[in-house]
Amino acid sequence: MTAGKRAAEASLETLHRIFTIPEAPDSTLGRIEKEISENLAGFLGNHIVATEQALTDIEKDFAGAVIPEQPAFVSDHMHHLLDKLVSRSVHTSSPSFIGHMTSALPYFILPLSKLMVGLNQNLVKIETSKAFTPLERQVLGMMHRLVYSEHEDFYQNWMHSANHSLGAFCSGGTVANLTALWVARNNMLKADGDFKGVAREGLFKALKHYGYEGMAILVSERGHYSLKKSADVLGLGQESVIAIPTDDRNRIDCQKLEEKCQALAKDNIKVLSIVGVAGTTETGNIDPLSDMADIAEKYQCHFHVDAAWGGATLLSNKYRSLLDGIERADSVTIDAHKQMYVPMGAGLVVFKNPSSVAAIEHHAEYILRKGSKDLGSHTLEGSRPGMAMLVYASLHIISRPGYELLINQGIDKAKYFASLIDQHSEFELVTQPELCLLTYRYVPSQVQAFMATADVDTNQHINRLIDKLTKFIQKSQREAGKSFVSRTRIEVQKYGGVKVLVFRVVLANPLTTNEILEDILEEQVELAQKSIQYLPELIENTSF
Amino acid sequence: MTAGKRAAEASLETLHRIFTIPEAPDSTLGRIEKEISENLAGFLGNHIVATEQALTDIEKDFAGAVIPEQPAFVSDHMHHLLDKLVSRSVHTSSPSFIGHMTSALPYFILPLSKLMVGLNQNLVKIETSKAFTPLERQVLGMMHRLVYSEHEDFYQNWMHSANHSLGAFCSGGTVANLTALWVARNNMLKADGDFKGVAREGLFKALKHYGYEGMAILVSERGHYSLKKSADVLGLGQESVIAIPTDDRNRIDCQKLEEKCQALAKDNIKVLSIVGVAGTTETGNIDPLSDMADIAEKYQCHFHVDAAWGGATLLSNKYRSLLDGIERADSVTIDAHKQMYVPMGAGLVVFKNPSSVAAIEHHAEYILRKGSKDLGSHTLEGSRPGMAMLVYASLHIISRPGYELLINQGIDKAKYFASLIDQHSEFELVTQPELCLLTYRYVPSQVQAFMATADVDTNQHINRLIDKLTKFIQKSQREAGKSFVSRTRIEVQKYGGVKVLVFRVVLANPLTTNEILEDILEEQVELAQKSIQYLPELIENTSF
Repeated sequence: MTAGKRAAEASLETLHRIFTIPEAPDSTLGRIEKEISENLAGFLGNHIVATEQALTDIEKDFAGAVIPEQPAFVSDHMHHLLDKLVSRSVHTSSPSFIGHMTSALPYFILPLSKLMVGLNQNLVKIETSKAFTPLERQVLGMMHRLVYSEHEDFYQNWMHSANHSLGAFCSGGTVANLTALWVARNNMLKADGDFKGVAREGLFKALKHYGYEGMAILVSERGHYSLKKSADVLGLGQESVIAIPTDDRNRIDCQKLEEKCQALAKDNIKVLSIVGVAGTTETGNIDPLSDMADIAEKYQCHFHVDAAWGGATLLSNKYRSLLDGIERADSVTIDAHKQMYVPMGAGLVVFKNPSSVAAIEHHAEYILRKGSKDLGSHTLEGSRPGMAMLVYASLHIISRPGYELLINQGIDKAKYFASLIDQHSEFELVTQPELCLLTYRYVPSQVQAFMATADVDTNQHINRLIDKLTKFIQKSQREAGKSFVSRTRIEVQKYGGVKVLVFRVVLANPLTTNEILEDILEEQVELAQKSIQYLPELIENTSF
Repeated sequence: MTAGKRAAEASLETLHRIFTIPEAPDSTLGRIEKEISENLAGFLGNHIVATEQALTDIEKDFAGAVIPEQPAFVSDHMHHLLDKLVSRSVHTSSPSFIGHMTSALPYFILPLSKLMVGLNQNLVKIETSKAFTPLERQVLGMMHRLVYSEHEDFYQNWMHSANHSLGAFCSGGTVANLTALWVARNNMLKADGDFKGVAREGLFKALKHYGYEGMAILVSERGHYSLKKSADVLGLGQESVIAIPTDDRNRIDCQKLEEKCQALAKDNIKVLSIVGVAGTTETGNIDPLSDMADIAEKYQCHFHVDAAWGGATLLSNKYRSLLDGIERADSVTIDAHKQMYVPMGAGLVVFKNPSSVAAIEHHAEYILRKGSKDLGSHTLEGSRPGMAMLVYASLHIISRPGYELLINQGIDKAKYFASLIDQHSEFELVTQPELCLLTYRYVPSQVQAFMATADVDTNQHINRLIDKLTKFIQKSQREAGKSFVSRTRIEVQKYGGVKVLVFRVVLANPLTTNEILEDILEEQVELAQKSIQYLPELIENTSF
């Protein structure tokens, strides 16, 4: 059949069928759906091919730029997707894939997501979302209360107020951090006398009006890269983000933070925001938030806490005190798609002051009219899906105590894994878990003994050799497909602050068992032994 | 049972079940899912209550800020969601709801969305998305080719290149427009001599270095509000967005555009970008893109086209020439969740020059390492879901000719509706459809006759009375729940450019029939007759 003939077959009638006729339960799509519903883990296990394929090979199957001129049958296309895409996707929910910030999802999430997609609400305005708007406002209220514990009255007054907002729901932590700093910038450089504010007149005139030489955002050197990105977007420049050194537990050094504030004040550079990290991406540590709040107060700047990862810890009565001081933050980022176990695409930021979002308010003729409760008047994004429903349902079905169990078991598991690593003569624990993250590396016991007495220069050389081995093990393990730890590079104080490559694990998946953790270490020892290049070289260099 | 006791029941074992055990087909959730799968339209029709409820009433059900201390049974919570949320959501896919930019979705979208959620890939990096990364790059390549029609070699060279990107996939048009202007700003204020570029040093130093007094973004008065928001976020200020008047077909007046460029140059204000609109949100008109490209070239500024709505028209060989000149744009925004019939949360921007995204490139230690193909190094967002899969599948299953039929039928339907309105003595067509959007209002024939000879002041007064009637009809129709048109306020040339309230319809839903359109007019006539306040007042004021 010629292409022209096939294309002609795509009549309007055929197309209408696509919009009206559901898949038959015995069709390919129907069968796949049934399999996903009945046994998602089994489906993923069966269809995702464990062993590694080179990206360049995969790219060959996604090579053309021509939009097809012939319609594909749904069933044919589903086979294509299973074969070319699903089979080479990443099993992010596997209990033995502990290198990501993803986890298995509660089973009710899948049908709820389908409901969400079917309803296809647009949360930019009430007209296209109706009850989803108060629902999202309530979710923001709940998360606000989790952080700030204001009184009942506070929520009754502000949660559903048209001209206020307790926060902003968004696609993820990056947009949440950007929104927080946008609000901070616009409030700090607000209208004043003849000056109409940075939102209207821009940064150039704002700095001239206020007489600042520049602005700065201060965060520990473990701060997330989204802060630099935000500073770039907001016109402040990446260099306005100043990295403050950390202590041996990856927490910001408050003395150095304050010294920097003083130095900047002398240079007439205004500190826009101090940013505390509650759960660093690489090591899961939490800054001394209360001390930071004191400094922010003293220097009269915005205090933001990036709790994209650690925010969910507030749901644990046992561990929430780790984040003491977060209630003094002006804004807090929390990712629901991380430790709150909803799928990708659910971040949020809450604001202590319900009026602070007025600084980013905007209106249009056809929506977001003044006085309306449209959510879109206080968000960076415009059209947005009803993801808040998934958070809402999870908060109700799992409930606070259920989340506490999930958070606690993650931390306990991390402590158990840390003890395993500590006890094992061939591994070196690099960072202790404070939340459910830790880092470590494989270092044969005789190498550890050698390094204990070697000088800094020698150790630097040895560390470079260990780095190669670490990379080899991490890569081989990922390629073998049974399990996965990620890798990153962090400074280690005992080696004079030199950066070394480490394995990084995140133990948030409730299905990860102690046995899996033991197997992962065992596999890493085996892989190290197989390294005919890196291990011998390392041993040779550290023989007494 | 006390709260404490219930909470204690949420043991880890119970929680593990939530992560492993699928819903039984006969459970509430299972039944709901089956209903959605087998007959989504029926499900929505059955569960969404048509008649209007006051938002303040709905808010009462979403009032508390306390996160539940007791877990809810999944089935109980599902009943709660059906009762309190779904029943009061908006039937965005209803064929008679023609006021939104939403439509019914192809049936394969629902199971595919479920697959997407189940896979839970994170497209920020290859490590958590693998084959989804080349897939997204291919989708961007296809959309790039749709706009720019470069040669095969071009796509072979750049589509999968680590240091290039043909575009950025994102959550929607607002982020797409923001990304485009961010790229434009960073390229225009790039590193130069001692100056390290706006990305690193910020806007204040950038303008000082380049010696500009300010920057401007020029767009027609029909431009989307996201442009002002972007200007605010980017530190340029909302006032940097300058609205250029339009002609009687809502298209930018190029002579006035060029005059403004000249005036700004004299004031030493650099034009950052001229923005063409391809499908205005309110009227669906398309700017003269080719003429605008000439002006952008002459004034050496970025030329962006916001084709969030109209971009899909390029899929129609019959109508794509309406967008002639778009291939000269430096960047183009297209929303896949609009006329490409995928669900909420799928926008994208393509860039003519695959190197231009280098201006917003960023890296981190643990991901987005230099030379990697991680998509996150060139996007505003960080973690992102695999929505590109839905666009990919739709492009294959519907195919280009299928999309052409969908686009064409929308435009044809709008023309038919326009003719209905034109022929009807009681209606006034305000804007002719160029794409599938049009605006109109209800004006009794004797009022039309009166206005034809009345002076401007009288007509202004009459228009205010008609506005009240328009608002009444639109609101009553929405509240009755059978059908929905939206309303907006636009200038009308024949009344001296005064703004009037109009009904706005978007005819993208392939299931909207001619009968539905006829019924909508009929209902509006009936509603007008019922207006015991506004219609009599109007008639009285226009009696000869």
